[in-house]
Amino acid sequence: MPRNGDEARRRLQQAALELFAEQGFDQTPVEAIAARAGVTERTFYRHFADKREMLFDGEGELRDQLVQALAAVPDGTKPMPALLAAFHQTVPLFESNRPFTEPGARLIARTPALQERSLAKQALLVRALTAALQDRGVNARTALLCAQAAMGTFAIATHRWMDDPSVTLHNHLDQAFRELRLATAALK
Amino acid sequence: MPRNGDEARRRLQQAALELFAEQGFDQTPVEAIAARAGVTERTFYRHFADKREMLFDGEGELRDQLVQALAAVPDGTKPMPALLAAFHQTVPLFESNRPFTEPGARLIARTPALQERSLAKQALLVRALTAALQDRGVNARTALLCAQAAMGTFAIATHRWMDDPSVTLHNHLDQAFRELRLATAALK
Repeated sequence: MPRNGDEARRRLQQAALELFAEQGFDQTPVEAIAARAGVTERTFYRHFADKREMLFDGEGELRDQLVQALAAVPDGTKPMPALLAAFHQTVPLFESNRPFTEPGARLIARTPALQERSLAKQALLVRALTAALQDRGVNARTALLCAQAAMGTFAIATHRWMDDPSVTLHNHLDQAFRELRLATAALK
Repeated sequence: MPRNGDEARRRLQQAALELFAEQGFDQTPVEAIAARAGVTERTFYRHFADKREMLFDGEGELRDQLVQALAAVPDGTKPMPALLAAFHQTVPLFESNRPFTEPGARLIARTPALQERSLAKQALLVRALTAALQDRGVNARTALLCAQAAMGTFAIATHRWMDDPSVTLHNHLDQAFRELRLATAALK
């Protein structure tokens, strides 16, 4: 038996990833995940609301880090550069979670129900970033427009990094935001 | 009884909007919608997969129009201006659907399950636009980045137009894309 809650949590995540890969997400009951992790179903539900939530475990921490990082960006920084600076601050979190999030991302990409949840989580992040920009004095309309464009570009950068870890996430971020600037510069 | 399929469809949509407003989306069974529209449940299911789908009825037509409009943009037009031009082509569709989509949008905004579906539909549009850009010779990475940023900005413009119809959707579109260009120009 795991010695503490954190270890149980990690074992449950590992067991879930193995089982999802072996027999598919839909075909894996919570009971089987708990059994492979050597814990009870009750322990599973102490850590996760359901098996979908296991794959989005880092989202709350990511949101908190982003909001804090955005608040810490020097006053007077414009919204898009401020958002990019905040995303750079979350790179260590992505790097340490990669062993879990990389197989998770592949699973999400091929499971429609998980894609819907992923999009909903992304929308929550957009909302949090919009509010955080407003706290910096940005008006509501501009805040939403920037938070949404930046969040989409951030997601593209992290997906590219999942596909190609030979380039750092920092570099993928700078590259994706540069592409966004160049593409939108063509608008008159 | 409605005289033809199109009329039954419109009556079902009207009945659904009334009932959703009166008693809530979750509390309205398909049976009640069919009854108010004066048709059988079987007729309902001939027109709609479920009651959620009723609110996204125009999505297939919108996707087709966008893809065709994008293909018709003059060769050599860069991705973001090409996307904006395609969005302008769909304004008549939005204008004619407004009596149904405006209450629908309010309902979606306050119903989490509908928001998830709405985000999934938007993701499908991003995918269709990405493919349509690739057909124009744009590389896959740039196509996805542009389609996503443009789709998000398009959604913002249509929401602003729902809130403020005193300005045309054409003007909301131009304004939102101008804001995107100005915001991203601050990136170095």
